[in-house]
Amino acid sequence: MPLTPEQQAEIDRQRDETQPTRRATVPALELILYQPVSVLDHGFVRVVDYMGDDAAVVQAARVSYGRGTKRVSEDRGLIHYLMRHRHTTPFEMCEIKFHVKLPIFVARQWIRHRTANVNEYSARYSILDKEFYIPAPDQLAAQSRTNRQGRGALLEGDEAAHVLALLRADAERAYASYTEMLNDDERGAARDPERQGLARELARMNLSLNFYTQWYWKTDLFNLMNFLALRGDRHAQYEIRAYAAAMLVMLDRWVPMTAEAFRQYRLGGAHLSEKSLAVVKRLIAGDRVSCRESGLSKREWAELMETLGRLDGPDEIA
Amino acid sequence: MPLTPEQQAEIDRQRDETQPTRRATVPALELILYQPVSVLDHGFVRVVDYMGDDAAVVQAARVSYGRGTKRVSEDRGLIHYLMRHRHTTPFEMCEIKFHVKLPIFVARQWIRHRTANVNEYSARYSILDKEFYIPAPDQLAAQSRTNRQGRGALLEGDEAAHVLALLRADAERAYASYTEMLNDDERGAARDPERQGLARELARMNLSLNFYTQWYWKTDLFNLMNFLALRGDRHAQYEIRAYAAAMLVMLDRWVPMTAEAFRQYRLGGAHLSEKSLAVVKRLIAGDRVSCRESGLSKREWAELMETLGRLDGPDEIA
Amino acid sequence: MPLTPEQQAEIDRQRDETQPTRRATVPALELILYQPVSVLDHGFVRVVDYMGDDAAVVQAARVSYGRGTKRVSEDRGLIHYLMRHRHTTPFEMCEIKFHVKLPIFVARQWIRHRTANVNEYSARYSILDKEFYIPAPDQLAAQSRTNRQGRGALLEGDEAAHVLALLRADAERAYASYTEMLNDDERGAARDPERQGLARELARMNLSLNFYTQWYWKTDLFNLMNFLALRGDRHAQYEIRAYAAAMLVMLDRWVPMTAEAFRQYRLGGAHLSEKSLAVVKRLIAGDRVSCRESGLSKREWAELMETLGRLDGPDEIA
Amino acid sequence: MPLTPEQQAEIDRQRDETQPTRRATVPALELILYQPVSVLDHGFVRVVDYMGDDAAVVQAARVSYGRGTKRVSEDRGLIHYLMRHRHTTPFEMCEIKFHVKLPIFVARQWIRHRTANVNEYSARYSILDKEFYIPAPDQLAAQSRTNRQGRGALLEGDEAAHVLALLRADAERAYASYTEMLNDDERGAARDPERQGLARELARMNLSLNFYTQWYWKTDLFNLMNFLALRGDRHAQYEIRAYAAAMLVMLDRWVPMTAEAFRQYRLGGAHLSEKSLAVVKRLIAGDRVSCRESGLSKREWAELMETLGRLDGPDEIA
Repeated sequence: MPLTPEQQAEIDRQRDETQPTRRATVPALELILYQPVSVLDHGFVRVVDYMGDDAAVVQAARVSYGRGTKRVSEDRGLIHYLMRHRHTTPFEMCEIKFHVKLPIFVARQWIRHRTANVNEYSARYSILDKEFYIPAPDQLAAQSRTNRQGRGALLEGDEAAHVLALLRADAERAYASYTEMLNDDERGAARDPERQGLARELARMNLSLNFYTQWYWKTDLFNLMNFLALRGDRHAQYEIRAYAAAMLVMLDRWVPMTAEAFRQYRLGGAHLSEKSLAVVKRLIAGDRVSCRESGLSKREWAELMETLGRLDGPDEIA
Repeated sequence: MPLTPEQQAEIDRQRDETQPTRRATVPALELILYQPVSVLDHGFVRVVDYMGDDAAVVQAARVSYGRGTKRVSEDRGLIHYLMRHRHTTPFEMCEIKFHVKLPIFVARQWIRHRTANVNEYSARYSILDKEFYIPAPDQLAAQSRTNRQGRGALLEGDEAAHVLALLRADAERAYASYTEMLNDDERGAARDPERQGLARELARMNLSLNFYTQWYWKTDLFNLMNFLALRGDRHAQYEIRAYAAAMLVMLDRWVPMTAEAFRQYRLGGAHLSEKSLAVVKRLIAGDRVSCRESGLSKREWAELMETLGRLDGPDEIA
Repeated sequence: MPLTPEQQAEIDRQRDETQPTRRATVPALELILYQPVSVLDHGFVRVVDYMGDDAAVVQAARVSYGRGTKRVSEDRGLIHYLMRHRHTTPFEMCEIKFHVKLPIFVARQWIRHRTANVNEYSARYSILDKEFYIPAPDQLAAQSRTNRQGRGALLEGDEAAHVLALLRADAERAYASYTEMLNDDERGAARDPERQGLARELARMNLSLNFYTQWYWKTDLFNLMNFLALRGDRHAQYEIRAYAAAMLVMLDRWVPMTAEAFRQYRLGGAHLSEKSLAVVKRLIAGDRVSCRESGLSKREWAELMETLGRLDGPDEIA
Repeated sequence: MPLTPEQQAEIDRQRDETQPTRRATVPALELILYQPVSVLDHGFVRVVDYMGDDAAVVQAARVSYGRGTKRVSEDRGLIHYLMRHRHTTPFEMCEIKFHVKLPIFVARQWIRHRTANVNEYSARYSILDKEFYIPAPDQLAAQSRTNRQGRGALLEGDEAAHVLALLRADAERAYASYTEMLNDDERGAARDPERQGLARELARMNLSLNFYTQWYWKTDLFNLMNFLALRGDRHAQYEIRAYAAAMLVMLDRWVPMTAEAFRQYRLGGAHLSEKSLAVVKRLIAGDRVSCRESGLSKREWAELMETLGRLDGPDEIA
């Protein structure tokens, strides 16, 4: 479990306090507020605050004086319409804040989402804990032979064991050197009174990219969905996808109508290029079409066949 | 008063409902939640949602597991430290949403603040009300003779009366033509069944820039303070300053420690250039300094004298 | 023509000067650099600077030391791959700057694109010219009966003539009052020495939204394509579409490979929702599908039939 | 030297080509275009493209049709005025693109500047080189005793030698394990044909934060100055300051008037809080002021004394 008993006690205390508010409130999200959900071997994600709900999307789209909602079916229809036509601004009216503990190499992908607010734990200022990510055996994948930035088959037997041993030994050693260079016992005094101890901002550079960091990350609903679409996609690296998967469940609790529309129009949908659309029209008309005459590259053709559920399809289909 | 009885009733209904929440809550801000504060002749600003409080700033700066606050004096000290050293990210952890009714020319200045989320009432889709801004007599200023983008003395007598009459007559006429071109009676039917009515997205172009529009505007605490510093400044146009002034009072309710630090370090402070700082050092040392030998332009010299409270100062001071 | 002879002479002078540079240069775009392209009755758009070319996209995607380009076919393939998979950051490596003259109501839509840099002509500081937009007869459309934010049939005969007369007379009158309130003859002296003249920042509020303003607008290639996709779409208002159309031609000159991919994957493509995709699969399989059993709303069904080129389609298709 | 001969040859080839352009061109910057400037032990920064010059700032501020410049003294005065009054948008009209090679822990600080475009070398896709940062002896500092995020005295003798040995040995070992897990000889074949090789996206996590990465980084002049002010400040970590220092010299070449104003108003200036300003006024008036009665905390008082050049100052000054 990624939390110390003291940390869990702090969270429990915070969960115990409630206050009356006139703001829009989402009971299903309140239920899990502050509670961490485990991700990977030592990581977590938890919602620490939120603003707005499905009705706030509706309210903003209508620029209304009160809650702005009408019948449930009308609100649902409006949210689906906004999602379908990529009207993004009403979804920006809701905001959510997460506390995330994650490996540094995941943090480096995550931070590329610029429309968000971030406060990261500072290793210039504080000492990092000895927590590093080691992939579970079912994620210890070989380099893909066909996709230069993907994973292939699982490593097995001796090779798997050797890789895990190397990862673990190197991280152990990196941390041992880190604390030795710092010369800091755990109460802030010098371990070796003969030494000064290296500056924290320098010592941290010895840690490897699988060490865990943590941050507060806040974004609006629209940009959260962009994050979930991109980082929840099967082309994303597994480790960040694990966070996106946990957060998608939180989205369902927070804004169920928006989440439903998001799954319908973005996660489950597909974008067809002009040429792909031409192929689809001919297929519906009952024509035979081959990759060659479609004008699509082999790669695009394969992607289109997959989208149309014809994974086993021949090069020519009717 | 800028609201219809129906709108006020909607607001009152919303103010009557409270829900329990585990989130950070600010009673002083809850008191005025949803309630419009009048600005100019038909405008208003009201807080419709918020996320976080002073403690959320502290919590983010410490990346803590619970509320993150310690003794009040320590929290206050940390917030002042963050403001003084322009550590901006912890202030981005709080968010606020306003509903604003404002003249279009004010909206055009306001929208230049890009780090915000906006949903504006659409005149492509709906018909605007007949509400336009006419300056109060104590704001009907002449063009400044010294500052090309400023106001000078008040207009008086016949000239003032003539200007007010022109502004009013032209706005009345613009609105009359607008509704005539639309050919829409107030229940959505044609006023004149012989005519089709001009498209809304075209008819609106006949309205002048003093007509009121409205929007939901959401931003984080850091960017709100940027807005208040820039638009509350005496060089800002009076009409947008009136909104900033109303919002500054809301800031005091929402995050009193942050607001105190904001007033101390930003609103009440001053930025000195390298040469101005050199002048200040010499003055403290008891030297005489003249504008000419300071290397400052006349304009900068005058600005420095004003900052130092020497408005009546001669060209040379000791 | 929207330029004075003096302005055209300034532009010609600038076009006559060339300098050697080591930077990436696009001869096809240099040919039209600074030259305004007319849009609407008094507007224009012109490219005043640019950075990068198709090769800069490739170079950034490869993080290369030199130009980074390989064979033309490889570069083209990479650009198409980036566009298809929505890899946005390499397209952000090119930048372009436009000078645009446009009606204020168009500027209000345009400014909503936040990821751009803008400097607008200031009517607080300067006096606006007497130039306002009057729709051409083939754009004088009635309100749509089916789409609350769209245009229907053209206005004709007396109604058209009346609308044009109203628009013109109101704009003339607004401008006459504007200059009268300013009390500024064209050389900066008072027209009527008995009057002070209203401040510019106040007088401008009397102008209507069809008056022209102008600005420098700078954005990167990715955000430019977002602008062109959204504002060139047939759901966008005609007046802003006219600018997008002129700028799309400039895109073709600047980055021909990127423009080709943009047309193929974004402009000519279509996004299908999960349910729409299911309908497509069944149609390809030769099944009959009705709107009712598809789970799509009538509106979505109609949109899908249009995408598939079945505009005349019955409610049920095979 | 941080470049291979092949890379330097590519750069030389690019420097040899010039093209005529109608765009604003800066000969002093062209002279160093593409040429890397060494930073730290293996890093560099080089300008790879730029748009605009000092005149483009002036042109945007005036929204002019031609170059927009007047006499040099007027342009210089306008640029100083814009900088003094924090008119930021004209400075956004210039853009610059850098290619930077930098340690990962520096990249993690740098990326926090969100208003920029970035393409980083991908270790999911490619294999990183064996290059890691080892501090020079004159930067091997102990943890500060007074500032939790700063450096104190230099490490010396055995402690310094031991720290350097640890840093070097751990980085060597991390890289050896990295390549062993990858099982990739340098021509893309397997080193050990019995093993599959770990996926690149996983193997990279074994590298430590002092390994070098590289990216293309593009930003506008205003945001570049924000970066230089913040990262060139003496409170910034030395390693990122080294990059800011190299880039400040490039700023001088690119936009000399803007750079001069930047040094005068931002780098060399100081911000005084309301209470500090009150102290300054009293000091100029010849009063005695003590820290206690000033209302400033001890820390603020010390900062003010330092700003006023009274580092040795007593607690009370006259």
